[in-house]
Amino acid sequence: MFDSKKHDQINPPARLLMGPGPINADPRVLRAMSAQLVGQYDPAMTAYMNETMSLYRDIFVTQNRWTLLIDGTSRAAIEACLVSAITPGDKVLIPVFGRFGHLLKEIAERCGADVYVIEKAWGEVFTPNEIEIAIKSIKPTLLALVQGDTSTTMLQPLEEIGKICHDHGVLLYCDATASIVGNTLLTDDWQIDAVSCGLQKCLGGPSGSGPITLSEKFVEHVRKRHHVESGIKASHHIEGSGDRIRSNYFDLPMILDYWGEERLNHHTEATTMLYGARECARIVLQEGLDNCIARHELHGQAMYKGLAAMNLELFGDLNHKMSNVVGVVIPPGVDGEAIRKQMLLDFCIEIGTSFGPLAGKIWRIGTMGYNARKDTVLTTLAALENCLRISGHQLTPGAGIDAALVVYG
Amino acid sequence: MFDSKKHDQINPPARLLMGPGPINADPRVLRAMSAQLVGQYDPAMTAYMNETMSLYRDIFVTQNRWTLLIDGTSRAAIEACLVSAITPGDKVLIPVFGRFGHLLKEIAERCGADVYVIEKAWGEVFTPNEIEIAIKSIKPTLLALVQGDTSTTMLQPLEEIGKICHDHGVLLYCDATASIVGNTLLTDDWQIDAVSCGLQKCLGGPSGSGPITLSEKFVEHVRKRHHVESGIKASHHIEGSGDRIRSNYFDLPMILDYWGEERLNHHTEATTMLYGARECARIVLQEGLDNCIARHELHGQAMYKGLAAMNLELFGDLNHKMSNVVGVVIPPGVDGEAIRKQMLLDFCIEIGTSFGPLAGKIWRIGTMGYNARKDTVLTTLAALENCLRISGHQLTPGAGIDAALVVYG
Repeated sequence: MFDSKKHDQINPPARLLMGPGPINADPRVLRAMSAQLVGQYDPAMTAYMNETMSLYRDIFVTQNRWTLLIDGTSRAAIEACLVSAITPGDKVLIPVFGRFGHLLKEIAERCGADVYVIEKAWGEVFTPNEIEIAIKSIKPTLLALVQGDTSTTMLQPLEEIGKICHDHGVLLYCDATASIVGNTLLTDDWQIDAVSCGLQKCLGGPSGSGPITLSEKFVEHVRKRHHVESGIKASHHIEGSGDRIRSNYFDLPMILDYWGEERLNHHTEATTMLYGARECARIVLQEGLDNCIARHELHGQAMYKGLAAMNLELFGDLNHKMSNVVGVVIPPGVDGEAIRKQMLLDFCIEIGTSFGPLAGKIWRIGTMGYNARKDTVLTTLAALENCLRISGHQLTPGAGIDAALVVYG
Repeated sequence: MFDSKKHDQINPPARLLMGPGPINADPRVLRAMSAQLVGQYDPAMTAYMNETMSLYRDIFVTQNRWTLLIDGTSRAAIEACLVSAITPGDKVLIPVFGRFGHLLKEIAERCGADVYVIEKAWGEVFTPNEIEIAIKSIKPTLLALVQGDTSTTMLQPLEEIGKICHDHGVLLYCDATASIVGNTLLTDDWQIDAVSCGLQKCLGGPSGSGPITLSEKFVEHVRKRHHVESGIKASHHIEGSGDRIRSNYFDLPMILDYWGEERLNHHTEATTMLYGARECARIVLQEGLDNCIARHELHGQAMYKGLAAMNLELFGDLNHKMSNVVGVVIPPGVDGEAIRKQMLLDFCIEIGTSFGPLAGKIWRIGTMGYNARKDTVLTTLAALENCLRISGHQLTPGAGIDAALVVYG
């Protein structure tokens, strides 16, 4: 039976998403995603796949041939890298400084790794020396860490980590979901063997596609476990000697065969998500990657200064904050969830809460991708000022907006 | 640097996709997917998640509470069901009658199952008795099979399999990706414990979202291995006693916690794909599920009769063919790939090849979802007639169109 509720057209409210992500998709990305499909092996499709590889090489600042998409959310891309790299029993070292470090630990454990963790209090990051000491003591085959952990808003410096890993014969994997194109990430210069991300933060797209890039060394490592599906295996296929990878969907050697010249069937590529992922990269590169990062720094700074001028304490080690998100300590006597609710329902603006030890203690406010703009920063500050004022928080009216305008000059 | 090739707008050719899927997305689905995002826990978002659950209950013809989306392609949905249900060492029985049966075997093996296979020649299906005999001999905990295997175009009758499984204490999983809403599937009446599918066949959407439905019994089974991520675990969370599921991304108990009342964070839902999945179900239910299946039968029949009238042999056991795809034996002396290429490049119509033992031996021609229409059937027949005529295949001009028109009456 026709049910007017279940059968109504999609018609979401016009939210301004100023949390830690997902954020509003760039309208150009949504338009690209409305293009009609082509077949999986259509020359137009394989050309788009190749273009997407090329565009993401520029996003990851790498020459890596194997730069492609995992069909799933950013978490799927993490799991593809880890399950393909980890043979059960391998030692894996994970420096944890927030929720997404815990996630890496979780995933690595399920891959059968012998996981070693070093931890920092939420709001801090590691020094290269702390990581090197742990590597020397544990001697892992793989080090996995997050560049920007949105749970704490911290950005782990990575410049020196790749060299340290390589000096000790360790592969380096990095989750750059929350940081990419809002903060500098130089895959090749920093010698990172595998990086994964998602579209829903500074890239300005919807969740559901996970770009990754893999070094030659990483590919050689995972190809030791190369395997071809029995339904499509041919006599010329040569397999690796290692144990089969524990997942079919996340088997990187098979996914490379699909994105490579043989185009050996694996999944059916999520064409609409690929159109979106391609457009996300395209518009960042049209703006210029450096300009895009500078834009995130500018608007992040304006938000940060504006919030500080509203008699609010900012969270964590501010020398190591991501440019694109800031943690705000919920002031004493203020009901954090009531403020978030009023922001959402009266102003249609979303700001974030946090997890674990920070649940109920900080808000997280993002300036990412399409929403890293002057108007969104000022609108958010003006709305928040009013919600705080109504809740009884002491502040100087207009001080937040004035401080942000100083940043804009 | 701006590169006009890499930086060009998406602009795919106007293909008519008449292969085994993916097919052209319904324009209403693409429009729904162009809607702007909302936050992950926005009341509008959680309402859309709940509506999507409700809509897919009607698609799967089930009362199962746990009816939801896996964020990935149809293959991801298969793996989520299998990796969550299979504890390493479990006996799993897989009746294989085409490539996608081999895929189930592959995935179950990687989940650590002790896999037993019974096989049919490509082009045939199993009798319930053959399956029962295998169950009695092997005593598996799970039976996994495909309803419609597009590699052969065959449709496995399932009416009696659920009862047989339950009489022997076996859980039944079914992959209905290629068959759903083009052929009858009655999850509850047929006692199927878990069904998964994708959007890219008769549902008329793009690949990238995998709807699933799970019986109470199946949920109880997977929840024995319930686990909560350490970054978000709270004191009230009670965990199962079984081994942790081998995948984080495909951990169904955690995914249920995310789709359920607690909304415990797992992945960031792929909102645009959810909008698309919701619209796919909505337009099928507006048409009426029975009408949608009847439409696939009508146009499948017209295509089938039209092809047969062009002096072409149809593939397999035609009493057990899916309504929405037909295998055509490539006539002797005809270069199958040359015909496919001319169809694609001169007429902009895609028809499919096949895999494994059928590679180069049959074409696969689909009439699915948005492309199950009179005009697409007639256009495809007319184009194929000309390609065949040019290649030297003997046929009576116009006979294919005439035969199809007889079906339309």
